[in-house]
Amino acid sequence: MSTQPRIVEVRRNILKHNDQVAAALRERFRAANVFVASLVSSPGSGKTAFLEKTLTMLREKGYRPAAITGDLATDNDAARLARSQAPVKQITTGTLCHLEAAMVEGAIGDWNLRDLDFLFIENVGNLVCPASYDLGENLRLVLLSVTEGEDKPLKYPTIFNSGDLAVITKLDLAEAVEFDHAAAKANVQSVRPGMPVIELSAKTGRGMEDWIAILVSRRTELGDSKGV
Amino acid sequence: MSTQPRIVEVRRNILKHNDQVAAALRERFRAANVFVASLVSSPGSGKTAFLEKTLTMLREKGYRPAAITGDLATDNDAARLARSQAPVKQITTGTLCHLEAAMVEGAIGDWNLRDLDFLFIENVGNLVCPASYDLGENLRLVLLSVTEGEDKPLKYPTIFNSGDLAVITKLDLAEAVEFDHAAAKANVQSVRPGMPVIELSAKTGRGMEDWIAILVSRRTELGDSKGV
Repeated sequence: MSTQPRIVEVRRNILKHNDQVAAALRERFRAANVFVASLVSSPGSGKTAFLEKTLTMLREKGYRPAAITGDLATDNDAARLARSQAPVKQITTGTLCHLEAAMVEGAIGDWNLRDLDFLFIENVGNLVCPASYDLGENLRLVLLSVTEGEDKPLKYPTIFNSGDLAVITKLDLAEAVEFDHAAAKANVQSVRPGMPVIELSAKTGRGMEDWIAILVSRRTELGDSKGV
Repeated sequence: MSTQPRIVEVRRNILKHNDQVAAALRERFRAANVFVASLVSSPGSGKTAFLEKTLTMLREKGYRPAAITGDLATDNDAARLARSQAPVKQITTGTLCHLEAAMVEGAIGDWNLRDLDFLFIENVGNLVCPASYDLGENLRLVLLSVTEGEDKPLKYPTIFNSGDLAVITKLDLAEAVEFDHAAAKANVQSVRPGMPVIELSAKTGRGMEDWIAILVSRRTELGDSKGV
């Protein structure tokens, strides 16, 4: 197609602009001592249930978490997450298939980042498009539910390569769908050798304490001097 | 962003080109009397299991189906579909989040369309990007598995608006996830009033005969003169 070289150039400019905004965000997060984790997955992988449970557990332990959640339409997720009592903002992207750093910057708005210990950014449900967009996060989680099948890392390698931690969700359904844990983990390793994988169920709570421990420890590693 | 008007123009050109290729494909399909259905859904909604079962059942009834399947990487789906004994081709898109009509044209290659009664096109697993791309199909199915949650039509309205028939899959798991059938159907109707919705399980076979009957009837409506 004759338009091909032109769209590649436009795309490169957008990505470059996004990287600059993301770098500035990351510096703001560092200065405010807030640990930022983003979540990417297919639609319906359980990002919101997992995040609601995470926010609730962190608050119970005395931390101050907040969340920004992205969707094409509706503020359903923000309403669900707000049940945790944590501050929450919704980004609606219209027809755009991913979040960009400038949208996160806009959503932060007048929040004082120094009032937060953790900030979570829930991306649009999409295993392709979010891969290329840095959001200034410290940790990118790629979620995969047991109901989606063990082969997803092989079929969507780019997004797994852009992530830091793979989270297998809906563990309570593993038996019903005959989920092959070893195959799923092997597939993650084959596209991204060394990527840590955790398994959990936000519904039953199984694996959630381990996840919270990882999160708190990652924040400490990054240089927490505020304590709780 | 200063690049915005330019990318909109480039995108418009690509869509226009795609529509032209899709229109030519649709005319070829009509001339060859092949009924073409495409499938879009999230990753892991069960498109391939549903399609494998559909191909097998159509062959058992004496029809001649074929399939083209799209993924970013791997030919796993083509290998699974080939177990039905139907002709199958795999498109791998690299980092592209959707199929385009020119890719379908390329995949058809040297197939004689007159040897086929049905052609299925399985899109990349993505509830956003495939919405804008006409593939020359006669029927676009939007699949939604019970494990994804009833709210997906509200959160991804564009793709549901681009579809002709909603298919609720993995019905065998409905009880385990406390799936609310009425809410899911109401959500489909609220974004696309009048859209037919069917429910089925490729695993247990429930609802599959009704689906095959719809397919055969839609092909007849379109003017089948070949019989079987």
